[in-house]
Amino acid sequence: MTRIEHEGGESPVQNVLFIMCDQLRWDSLGCVGHPFIQTPNIDALADRGVRFDQAFVNGAVCGSSRMSYYTGRYVVSHGARWNQVPLEVTQKTMGDHLRELGVPAVLVGKTHMRADEEARSRLAIPANSPEWLFLSECGFAPEEHDDGLHPDERVRTDLPYNDFLRSKGFAGDNPWHTAANSVIDANGELCSGWLLRSAPFPAVVPDELSETAYMTDRAIDYIKKAGDDRWCLHLSYIKPHWPYVASDPYHAMYAGEEMPTPNRTKAELETTHPVIRALHRSRIGKAMSKPEARQLVLPTYLGMIKQIDDHLGRLFTEMDRLGRTKDTLIVFTSDHGEYMGDHWMGEKDWINEEVVRVPMIVVDPRSQADVTRGTVSNELVEAIDLLPTFVEALGGENNTRTHWLEGESLVPLLHGEHGTERDFVVCEADWGFLEMSHHVSETNEPRKRRATMLRNDRYKYVLSEIGPNLLYDLEDDPDEQNDCISDPALQSVVSELHEQLFSWFRNRRHDTTVTDQMISATSEPGSAAKRGILIGYWDEEELAAGKRGELY
Amino acid sequence: MTRIEHEGGESPVQNVLFIMCDQLRWDSLGCVGHPFIQTPNIDALADRGVRFDQAFVNGAVCGSSRMSYYTGRYVVSHGARWNQVPLEVTQKTMGDHLRELGVPAVLVGKTHMRADEEARSRLAIPANSPEWLFLSECGFAPEEHDDGLHPDERVRTDLPYNDFLRSKGFAGDNPWHTAANSVIDANGELCSGWLLRSAPFPAVVPDELSETAYMTDRAIDYIKKAGDDRWCLHLSYIKPHWPYVASDPYHAMYAGEEMPTPNRTKAELETTHPVIRALHRSRIGKAMSKPEARQLVLPTYLGMIKQIDDHLGRLFTEMDRLGRTKDTLIVFTSDHGEYMGDHWMGEKDWINEEVVRVPMIVVDPRSQADVTRGTVSNELVEAIDLLPTFVEALGGENNTRTHWLEGESLVPLLHGEHGTERDFVVCEADWGFLEMSHHVSETNEPRKRRATMLRNDRYKYVLSEIGPNLLYDLEDDPDEQNDCISDPALQSVVSELHEQLFSWFRNRRHDTTVTDQMISATSEPGSAAKRGILIGYWDEEELAAGKRGELY
Repeated sequence: MTRIEHEGGESPVQNVLFIMCDQLRWDSLGCVGHPFIQTPNIDALADRGVRFDQAFVNGAVCGSSRMSYYTGRYVVSHGARWNQVPLEVTQKTMGDHLRELGVPAVLVGKTHMRADEEARSRLAIPANSPEWLFLSECGFAPEEHDDGLHPDERVRTDLPYNDFLRSKGFAGDNPWHTAANSVIDANGELCSGWLLRSAPFPAVVPDELSETAYMTDRAIDYIKKAGDDRWCLHLSYIKPHWPYVASDPYHAMYAGEEMPTPNRTKAELETTHPVIRALHRSRIGKAMSKPEARQLVLPTYLGMIKQIDDHLGRLFTEMDRLGRTKDTLIVFTSDHGEYMGDHWMGEKDWINEEVVRVPMIVVDPRSQADVTRGTVSNELVEAIDLLPTFVEALGGENNTRTHWLEGESLVPLLHGEHGTERDFVVCEADWGFLEMSHHVSETNEPRKRRATMLRNDRYKYVLSEIGPNLLYDLEDDPDEQNDCISDPALQSVVSELHEQLFSWFRNRRHDTTVTDQMISATSEPGSAAKRGILIGYWDEEELAAGKRGELY
Repeated sequence: MTRIEHEGGESPVQNVLFIMCDQLRWDSLGCVGHPFIQTPNIDALADRGVRFDQAFVNGAVCGSSRMSYYTGRYVVSHGARWNQVPLEVTQKTMGDHLRELGVPAVLVGKTHMRADEEARSRLAIPANSPEWLFLSECGFAPEEHDDGLHPDERVRTDLPYNDFLRSKGFAGDNPWHTAANSVIDANGELCSGWLLRSAPFPAVVPDELSETAYMTDRAIDYIKKAGDDRWCLHLSYIKPHWPYVASDPYHAMYAGEEMPTPNRTKAELETTHPVIRALHRSRIGKAMSKPEARQLVLPTYLGMIKQIDDHLGRLFTEMDRLGRTKDTLIVFTSDHGEYMGDHWMGEKDWINEEVVRVPMIVVDPRSQADVTRGTVSNELVEAIDLLPTFVEALGGENNTRTHWLEGESLVPLLHGEHGTERDFVVCEADWGFLEMSHHVSETNEPRKRRATMLRNDRYKYVLSEIGPNLLYDLEDDPDEQNDCISDPALQSVVSELHEQLFSWFRNRRHDTTVTDQMISATSEPGSAAKRGILIGYWDEEELAAGKRGELY
């Protein structure tokens, strides 16, 4: 973990700060042009780095999206298709790739990764081994692992944040719920933050004891403690994910603003698409489509974002003071967005821009990145690009598209060298784990309850395993209000996108136990004969020529 | 491992004898109608069971095909795409599925499975643990593990068959090569069996010391030793795989016969398909296309098959004597075929019937199978069907198409109940590990050197990642001599097959850490609320209804 200084050429960065919000929409930052939210500290990152305006996640829900971030692999490749689906122990994570460079991946906050205990048992991996700790923590060194969702039904007894709150006087089994994620309502009653009616009221805890403040403090503590050691720190906030609760003053900061009009049309309610209809009819779809819902919830959601921005300001000041700003690559992004009533939906799990498009800002402190500082890139980038970016920035080879890493390093973009090789991005959605799937009568096969989105600069094509496919022309219809899959003029477009998606499926990396180099070595002329595998040699004379590599 | 007797209903069989030959073509048995080879013992199996005349392997080479047999999964799902590609430790094998029924999978002979040592190290699986022995032996209890290919360059020092030969007076480091797979040529000189010119001469070892005899003896020993214990014994012969060497009298048994005309046309040599051209130009393609090659090699190949049949006769007699015939399900099959100069090719690795179609005979001893005894089935069956067949026959549930098992149990077919649900079979071919791939200039990407075959009752469609796709109309052209991919009249057929293959790719089971039941449980109305995940509830009243499962 000693620091690296190169004499000539491109020096690696010393550290990576990988900041992730949860359920943060792409459009809810000041630097993106939000009408009233102010996020000066995040905006300052954009000023110092590149803001990728066309950045997409690869999974439409926390678990699958995060596993793509952490493995650098598409969802169909890593296999953890939804929340609580264990990640296969054979999947290599950020921690695997970075430890080859001597840099630990360190966690403060949420991963939403579930360890595969069944595999541990079957494979006899010792439960108390460092290897199992590594695997069960998704390859991260858990400085503070807190997935941020602690309903009373399954609260962790060892949750440090609960201990912290108790030390501050918030008693009980689960002050995460009763203090940090509950409010005092208009009647002076304690009300659970899980209920939407709580959104306008302030959290029981003051801002400085909130989850956002606490996780920021833990990140600062780690950076101080690390001193000159190198690190990749994943600061992974639970907010602005539900429960929709913000501490004073953030709970009321935007209550007086006029919320943006929902992106939805009456015509959308007339859809016959069984999945979209079911999403409309789901609990969260109906709740967030109520006329009063946005005005109730959205101010709190924006307040939580503002709260994060303020605490990031504290972190960045501390990094300046410690000298870490100049040698740390900083990423700010999100694991997915949130419908918030757009398209008559709530939550996530489907394929509209509100969900699949995320903020992504990357600050490379090196002089080579000066040419792109403060710019906005319209290149199509994906969540899976971050891990190869970190590998290259920290001094590894640019292993773009290996048998493990399916993304592309963004370093060439940051250094103004060239764009990506990508023609489209892909995001996979599984709605079969949702209760609303019972509204879809078309299938009893849980693994058919899926859709795959391919989006290029102009079109979004959705291959839906249940119900018809969809097409949006984002140039004519950036709000995705008109499915044009049946437009006769677009049938050649549909065919082409369909074929691209087929090719994409065939090119996934399911064969991870062999490298390209091993395949090439095996096929080297003469190599079989050298291994003693003598096929098709007539006699000794031919064999000698074969061993010289002259016959193949 | 105690025996099971059911009072009523369908009793499970007690044992499974899973016999596999290596590189045995579908057409080289007496019961299939071969013009002169006599295989009375195998034919007797066909008389007592069902001969599947349309049986196909899922991989076009030993390693990938066998991993499909052993995992019940397509190649893209298990990932071991060629020989020497390690099987992921997370892939469940026959041994995993059968031990749940208390039945061990026992090996005598070849698996061609390579253990993933890198994963063992990364996962801290103790090298001396029973779990690692299980994993590294592909889930088999290795009564005798001998992959049958022991070139001097990498001979195993602990090879029991070499010890056996030495005990019989065949000295040297590697009598597998110098005795069992070498010959005395016409000049009285010792000549390696690897060289084709050795084929007509007798092996140094007599028949009773041959690999085929030895492995048969080991199988008989095991069955005797097992007594009343239940087992699934995989008797996996290396022959008639090369080296093309047979002991006396088998080396000369068919030398006087007129060999069948090769299935090849001059027109095929005019192909512009880069992969097929390279296969023609490969060492083995050129060698086996020589006019004299078939007359030299094919008699020995057939002799090795006859030799296996004779030794199987010994085994079956012994099973009769031990009472095992009446309670053992017996399968006879092969891991793939062999071109033997057909289509101007040698070996395997491509998608013609000579390679992908295999003999498959299944004898179910139970009375329920009496209705199908001695019949020939034209149902499309695949290698991956055997494992679910074994699971069901041994008393497990018919878990047809679980998240692990992608094949279909053949028990309903054997019992005359119903056919498969299958419309087509799929076989995957990787030629990128072959030295001939250097003749294909179109790609430097090793993982593009692939083709996927979809075959239904009439057509064979080949999606070739390099070079054009192919179509054969097997009704008009059973010998696959005319690629009709460009026939204007067949474009709708091509489109349909292409789309079926796309759907097939999307439906593979890459998410193996979650069962269908887990998905269904998660999506059960009210289950999220019961877990404490309260999304979209306005107030306490709605929440109560949600917990009752009334809202979702």
